[in-house]
Amino acid sequence: MLKKIELVIISAFLSLLLRAQVNTGFNLMPIPKEIHINDHKLVIDMNFKVSVIGNPNSRIYPEASRFLRRLSNATGIFLDKQGFVTPKDNNVSSALLIMVKRPGKLELGEDESYTLETKANQVVIDAITDIGAIRALETLLQLLSADAQGYYFPGVIIHDQPRFAWRGLLLDVALHFMPVDVVKRTLDGMAAVKMNVLHLHLCNDQGFRVESKVFPRLQQVASDGIYYTQEEIRDIVHYAGQRGIRVVPEFVVPAHTTAILTAYPEFASVKRDYKLQRYFGVFDPVMDPTNEKLYPFLEKLFLEMSSLFPDAYFHIGGDENTGKDWSSNPHIQAFMKAHGMKSTADLQTYFNQRLLPIIKKCGKTMVGWDEIFHPGLPKEVVIESWRGNESFYGSIKKGHPSILSYGYYIDLIQPASYHYQNDPIPDSVKLTAAETKLVLGGEATMWSEMVTPVTVDSRIWPRTAAIAERLWSPQTVRDTDDMYHRLDIESLRLEALGLRHISYKYPLMRQLVKGYDIKPLEVLVSVIEPLKIYERNEGDTMYTVFSPFTKLADVASPDQPVPRIFNKQVDSFLINPSPELEKTINEKLTLWKENDLPFQQLVKKSPVLQEAASLSQNLSKLADAGMQAMQYIQEHHNLGKDWLQEKMDIIKQARKQGGRCELQVVDAVQRLIEKAAETY
Amino acid sequence: MLKKIELVIISAFLSLLLRAQVNTGFNLMPIPKEIHINDHKLVIDMNFKVSVIGNPNSRIYPEASRFLRRLSNATGIFLDKQGFVTPKDNNVSSALLIMVKRPGKLELGEDESYTLETKANQVVIDAITDIGAIRALETLLQLLSADAQGYYFPGVIIHDQPRFAWRGLLLDVALHFMPVDVVKRTLDGMAAVKMNVLHLHLCNDQGFRVESKVFPRLQQVASDGIYYTQEEIRDIVHYAGQRGIRVVPEFVVPAHTTAILTAYPEFASVKRDYKLQRYFGVFDPVMDPTNEKLYPFLEKLFLEMSSLFPDAYFHIGGDENTGKDWSSNPHIQAFMKAHGMKSTADLQTYFNQRLLPIIKKCGKTMVGWDEIFHPGLPKEVVIESWRGNESFYGSIKKGHPSILSYGYYIDLIQPASYHYQNDPIPDSVKLTAAETKLVLGGEATMWSEMVTPVTVDSRIWPRTAAIAERLWSPQTVRDTDDMYHRLDIESLRLEALGLRHISYKYPLMRQLVKGYDIKPLEVLVSVIEPLKIYERNEGDTMYTVFSPFTKLADVASPDQPVPRIFNKQVDSFLINPSPELEKTINEKLTLWKENDLPFQQLVKKSPVLQEAASLSQNLSKLADAGMQAMQYIQEHHNLGKDWLQEKMDIIKQARKQGGRCELQVVDAVQRLIEKAAETY
Repeated sequence: MLKKIELVIISAFLSLLLRAQVNTGFNLMPIPKEIHINDHKLVIDMNFKVSVIGNPNSRIYPEASRFLRRLSNATGIFLDKQGFVTPKDNNVSSALLIMVKRPGKLELGEDESYTLETKANQVVIDAITDIGAIRALETLLQLLSADAQGYYFPGVIIHDQPRFAWRGLLLDVALHFMPVDVVKRTLDGMAAVKMNVLHLHLCNDQGFRVESKVFPRLQQVASDGIYYTQEEIRDIVHYAGQRGIRVVPEFVVPAHTTAILTAYPEFASVKRDYKLQRYFGVFDPVMDPTNEKLYPFLEKLFLEMSSLFPDAYFHIGGDENTGKDWSSNPHIQAFMKAHGMKSTADLQTYFNQRLLPIIKKCGKTMVGWDEIFHPGLPKEVVIESWRGNESFYGSIKKGHPSILSYGYYIDLIQPASYHYQNDPIPDSVKLTAAETKLVLGGEATMWSEMVTPVTVDSRIWPRTAAIAERLWSPQTVRDTDDMYHRLDIESLRLEALGLRHISYKYPLMRQLVKGYDIKPLEVLVSVIEPLKIYERNEGDTMYTVFSPFTKLADVASPDQPVPRIFNKQVDSFLINPSPELEKTINEKLTLWKENDLPFQQLVKKSPVLQEAASLSQNLSKLADAGMQAMQYIQEHHNLGKDWLQEKMDIIKQARKQGGRCELQVVDAVQRLIEKAAETY
Repeated sequence: MLKKIELVIISAFLSLLLRAQVNTGFNLMPIPKEIHINDHKLVIDMNFKVSVIGNPNSRIYPEASRFLRRLSNATGIFLDKQGFVTPKDNNVSSALLIMVKRPGKLELGEDESYTLETKANQVVIDAITDIGAIRALETLLQLLSADAQGYYFPGVIIHDQPRFAWRGLLLDVALHFMPVDVVKRTLDGMAAVKMNVLHLHLCNDQGFRVESKVFPRLQQVASDGIYYTQEEIRDIVHYAGQRGIRVVPEFVVPAHTTAILTAYPEFASVKRDYKLQRYFGVFDPVMDPTNEKLYPFLEKLFLEMSSLFPDAYFHIGGDENTGKDWSSNPHIQAFMKAHGMKSTADLQTYFNQRLLPIIKKCGKTMVGWDEIFHPGLPKEVVIESWRGNESFYGSIKKGHPSILSYGYYIDLIQPASYHYQNDPIPDSVKLTAAETKLVLGGEATMWSEMVTPVTVDSRIWPRTAAIAERLWSPQTVRDTDDMYHRLDIESLRLEALGLRHISYKYPLMRQLVKGYDIKPLEVLVSVIEPLKIYERNEGDTMYTVFSPFTKLADVASPDQPVPRIFNKQVDSFLINPSPELEKTINEKLTLWKENDLPFQQLVKKSPVLQEAASLSQNLSKLADAGMQAMQYIQEHHNLGKDWLQEKMDIIKQARKQGGRCELQVVDAVQRLIEKAAETY
């Protein structure tokens, strides 16, 4: 027992130490490379103005103007004296002086470093590029502090630069479409945590989401009318560029192409009546690589599409080809035989080799999921790894620049701590200097099977901020407790920016209860999370693109703070059962126990909540068992084996899903029960 | 005293009676013309499908599909069997059968009537036009009911049609721009309450908000880069048309044209260095009607603009010309003299007469604010009245079709009851049948001086639903209590549709308190409202387009339910001081009294709340005075005059604004105090 306590104390001490090193109380996220404190303090008042000097790209002016409005919104101070920051604003003694050496380019590896220093009457940002200065502006807004006298920027000297050059978010707009305003607020959030790549997944079996003037059937027949116009794409790309964010488009081929084949069935491997896929999963339709007409089609299409996206990288997907449609087509089989190809992978390799000159003709560097990696693939092709570390380091060892997505699948509802601990170059992996350079960075992936424009923010934020920190901050920044402390604060800052990961719940809950008093539902929702990994969509057959995503599992969101904190409190209590902890834990257990009665009243009024009835009941019984355990622990009661058995049945019951959600406080209560039984 | 009680009883009785007549418990809004109850009930399950037969405009299909998704979202029932309603869905025994006689046209006076009947196994909508059917679909969604068994549509036979043909909302996108997604959700809300005209106020001194390809300087120089592209305008017009909503554009001339004159100063009456206006108010810049080059310019501009808006009406503003720039220009003065014009109005009449053939050439009917009304104005010109009933009936008596906006100025933060009582043809006004026909309807006006995309919903909704009912439902529907009962329910339905008039507050409050625990602020905000009429923007000089609208007065919203209900409770208590009422009132007073302590803690942490400190303090003192009064009323204490004086000082203090807001419970507490003193 002592051993356990020692360990906890040591780890708590280490944790404090680490926190002291990296977090100086300003709650920055991501943590900068270096931060020092000085004695200055810049008070913000109505005369606060921004100047820019040097040789920036013009994007700095709207961004500096946006900074001013955000500062004004956060403080309520009327900063009307400067509506827009323009090149005329070059007074070197302005409250905020931004110095930029040269125009930043929207390209991989561009300099994003900056220095931010509070001086006597001024904050000075000094950056090589305007993109670095834009990163600094986000840091400065995070530094905003207040006391009874008013708002100020504290005294700091920060030297910052990213650890990885590719810090991305994949937004899937094919499975569930995301309107332009959703994309824009996502970009705002990304910029706030210094991410720099928006990977747009633009087509899949469920739809093709970009207007094509060359092949208009793509949006006419294969989008349900839900797609971006080219003007909208340009708008998104411009909006991202303003924030120093590159946009990398993904047009997945040869599989996941039901939509394209619905518009142009002549390119399919198997003749079928192609229709847009309504389910989510892995399907057989695939392009026929032996059809010579396919390549001119792809060339024209990709030339048009790549012209909309100025970025140097072009993602061709390449994942999840079942190969079945290739096997079942004798012509394809004959082709494979004639060319000595033995597997689906061989034929896909051939397809990729045909694709490569097309992508080059578009002036782009090819990116694909790790399935495209095969011997002989030119080394310039970038591999994005989603299947595991093995394939990630595999492609790196073979000389491919690589991006890690495995471990950053935010659609799988895992906690931020899980993603946070997923380092692209963990201590356990030894890479040469050259190999290390090939680790471009990583990408959080927001696949949209189970999300809509209403819920998507809650699946991206705030967890993605933890991934952003993993990719920006030094490797030594890895204290999970400290991360959560700052994440809770960053979450509010992201909300102030317009993201709806907190507020989206309340309209949905009011709809679910058909009224204003959501309290019993709110209590339940605070301790549940949607089923994780791919469990929510059982066998990929429960949900379609037409399903309602307005139910319990949509109101529930990942990584809930209430169970996270409760778990910690129970752990602490088991080591040191202080009266304060006892009180807090019992208060929570009482709340959960008593919540079921009013909750079942709601269910009667609102049949949509019936699926949650058992969860609420189980929570009540679980809480009751927990309260008994608390009492026995304190009183050292003599418990029978029957008691333990009875409680373990309740635990078992409490682990069952309801409404595609699970209770998140079962483990903690189980620990209490086991402790109580141990006392016996 | 008895007299007062009698009156209250009689009015309560009448109110109940009226409610019984019009509201059959389904809480429809607007109330239909006729509603009867039958014994049928249509249970909604996974097999629920929609068919359309007859000869509709194709807009019915996406609207019927949208209905299906909304029904699915509201009930959580997977209606995946029918993704989209198409012309192939013509099974006459579908759960919902929509019968349409002919395609509806987007024009004034188009038939919007419908019959909706629940039959044994089916709901049948029967309408002349698809637009009528679309109105019926909104009624049907409002009818959605639930019991412990599940969801169903109750048994009704509804015959419905609007009282007025023009039921509009003016959305000002010039003073504060509203992005496309805001406009779209506004259109959703309008359709939900059966409004049919979106009047877009597209330019003003602060900016010109539509891309012009003919005069690109308008958006390049006169919009701060904030404008709709022509593609976006087409998108908005299409989205509105889908919902049976016409879009009437307003391009205000000759005054309120600082933006146009910033781009094209050659058309100004006075030479100046024109720059976009940053304040809100009435300014001198005005076009020079004596400049012959002005008319070809306006013709080209209006031909381009009117081509974007297919509606037959074109609004040319015409309001708030100070005339000063005309007076100060000798050339204009000479012109007026030469043409025998004596006043600003005369010259504006001349300008309008020159404008009229241009608008006709655009194929449009001219609409203008009531300032353009003058003798000799052709009778087809539609007058929109904002200055009062006198001008409204004045223009009607002179034969002009007219629209009432006076009394529907929702930007002025007045309660829904005020707007609701504002009938376009009140009992007191006698009109001939011909004159009655000239009353086209009315328009709620959302001027955007004080609103942003974040707050605008809270200024439009739910109050506009009361105006929508005024313009749709029979004149006899006018029970304010019943309206509020239904408005509170409609407010939730509007929220479920995507409007943010409730939820927008919480992110703002979390930003204001810099944390998650907003309770003390929430308590204060629930009993305050922003300063009404034009008081918030003192002398039009407090706010500019760059000001923060993220403060107390923005979180506060009009027509708060808490004070509304408290006022009613106090009134009831003063007549019949029941123990229940006493308890409720004292609970509220205690809450408000004790809220100040935690609130002042927030203020220390968050300087932006300093402006609210006095309000919170005053509320606390007011509540304390109220509690004393409650006690004295019950105990029949002997009070001194000093007590009353002291309390009246508190009342006086409590009426003072703080953070551009006012407490809304002062009158009620004053009544308690006066009652307590009366006892003396």
